Amino acid sequence: MSYYIATSISLPFDQAIGAAEAALAEEGFGVISRIDIQATLKVKIGADFRPYTILGACNPKLAHEALQLEDKVGTMLPCNVVVQDLGSGETEIAAIDPVASMQAIENGELASAAAEVRAKLQRAIDSVSQARGS
Amino acid sequence: MSYYIATSISLPFDQAIGAAEAALAEEGFGVISRIDIQATLKVKIGADFRPYTILGACNPKLAHEALQLEDKVGTMLPCNVVVQDLGSGETEIAAIDPVASMQAIENGELASAAAEVRAKLQRAIDSVSQARGS
Repeated sequence: MSYYIATSISLPFDQAIGAAEAALAEEGFGVISRIDIQATLKVKIGADFRPYTILGACNPKLAHEALQLEDKVGTMLPCNVVVQDLGSGETEIAAIDPVASMQAIENGELASAAAEVRAKLQRAIDSVSQARGS
Repeated sequence: MSYYIATSISLPFDQAIGAAEAALAEEGFGVISRIDIQATLKVKIGADFRPYTILGACNPKLAHEALQLEDKVGTMLPCNVVVQDLGSGETEIAAIDPVASMQAIENGELASAAAEVRAKLQRAIDSVSQARGS
């Protein structure tokens, strides 16, 4: 079982972030956190790393439902979407598969909610892929 | 297998966030994201929710190693630490168990790195608990 849903697209890194955010918005996800891993690793330990940003995607209604089902599910929220530069104008977008990551949580109702979120993330990735897929 | 490492402490919510951040810092984790779930749910869908903040804890050296072992591990980074108000001056601090969350990733070297991170998070939670445990 894969733990992510990914595609690569023929867009430069910065534009790919915008495309990912637009596709997520169409499925009801707001981006509530952005972590620039390249900058973080450079500042904290002086390491060089390729452009790599983690977007925290949150569908507030579904997140609220999940939090009511499982009070510590916030340890796995928001749903991360990694955007990383593959070079040569190609960028990869990879969303967490919440069904895979939440398999450690024994809660049947939450598993159903996770499946709903996975379907939305899959549609967002498909949407980016079809519009800009390589 | 539990998917988190938790303790409750006799401190008001805001002070508990500070105590958690201090304990994480002792183990080499910086907090690189902070998500105020109470405010997010209020603003986005008008829902009332208790004080609940997700801290994104990152040990840059170990994160760098993990990213070199598994390029899409960013879908599970940083390690989330949930701080939530239990009422009556009690606050719960719950860190993700990265060994549990990353069990969906089939990568033995990453599993070893996750175990190292888990040990550090366990020590941070123990440190808060011993200093302020209820």
